[in-house]
Amino acid sequence: MSRWKPDARGRLEKAAMELYSDKGFDATTVAEIAARAGVTERTFYRHFVDKREVLFQTNALADVLAHATATAADPLAPLEVITHALTEAAPVFEERAELVRQRQAVIAANPELQERELAKLASLVSTLAHALRERGLETTTAALAAEIGIAAFKVAFERWIDDPDQHTLAQHIRETLDATRHLTAPAEHAAATDDASFQSQESVA
Amino acid sequence: MSRWKPDARGRLEKAAMELYSDKGFDATTVAEIAARAGVTERTFYRHFVDKREVLFQTNALADVLAHATATAADPLAPLEVITHALTEAAPVFEERAELVRQRQAVIAANPELQERELAKLASLVSTLAHALRERGLETTTAALAAEIGIAAFKVAFERWIDDPDQHTLAQHIRETLDATRHLTAPAEHAAATDDASFQSQESVA
Repeated sequence: MSRWKPDARGRLEKAAMELYSDKGFDATTVAEIAARAGVTERTFYRHFVDKREVLFQTNALADVLAHATATAADPLAPLEVITHALTEAAPVFEERAELVRQRQAVIAANPELQERELAKLASLVSTLAHALRERGLETTTAALAAEIGIAAFKVAFERWIDDPDQHTLAQHIRETLDATRHLTAPAEHAAATDDASFQSQESVA
Repeated sequence: MSRWKPDARGRLEKAAMELYSDKGFDATTVAEIAARAGVTERTFYRHFVDKREVLFQTNALADVLAHATATAADPLAPLEVITHALTEAAPVFEERAELVRQRQAVIAANPELQERELAKLASLVSTLAHALRERGLETTTAALAAEIGIAAFKVAFERWIDDPDQHTLAQHIRETLDATRHLTAPAEHAAATDDASFQSQESVA
């Protein structure tokens, strides 16, 4: 029967995201998700603990970040290690861009899901900081680099989600981390550099 | 009567923090807090909506950050504006260091409070980004600088909370934001600079 199709999980995810987008997260039931995916509720629960877990799966991201940080060339400046790790992780999002965009809109509409998302990002900071310490980085430097890396990732991710020019996420990550270098330049020079790095979609306010 | 003493709010806060530390946040009641502070429950509710609000008051921090960002000298590099704003905000914490330390321990012990704390930090990022845009900074640069500023503040705050040498929070903020500049330097130079900036309390791992 349909519940044994190998892509049940993918269909459930797609069905859930459509329903969350149409009806809102709170108003959607697991029964509706299962019905739209053409599987039983039991199949839903074989793949997900509850309807929130469809949005916050223990996904590959933390693993990819940790692995890419551990295997980056040596020596590299901390921010270069992070640029490498984040661009390695970009395909996790790019391969499912449509689902990722829907997910983002669902979360933006729900304060409780937003808090959950922030907690997830905080746990990625810990993962990254740990991986950087394993490379021999001193504790505070590792914490700071990890915080800055995830902060830059958030900004890059938001640019990518809304990008009319459809540059890749990896491209936005590289641009955003490059831009962190210009933040210490005096205001006028910084403004000039912004124009250059962010000219593709932003105008100077 | 005691409920009219001008420092009822301060006594309530102190009493709440002691009880949260001793018994845990969940096990503490408003009645107990009021009793320990020597006021009625009604007085408690005149100052706070609920026992969680004692930990997450609409405090002066966002106002100080916005004002200091608006009034920083011009021209300054974005990261210098942020250094100025965050060090101006440091006294908000330093003046009540003991309460701040207790509060931090209470939050660290409770996942729900941790998510609330992350949401509060995210709203500070928005406040700071808005204030930077008002200074004429382009949208993405403002967002990035604000994210990095709050990220650096988190790291500085944690160092300050645990600092056996009792350096000021302002000092930790300056050191941490200085350190962000060195993260973009080539690997060998970065490592050398870490030793210098963080030698006061960290050893190189």
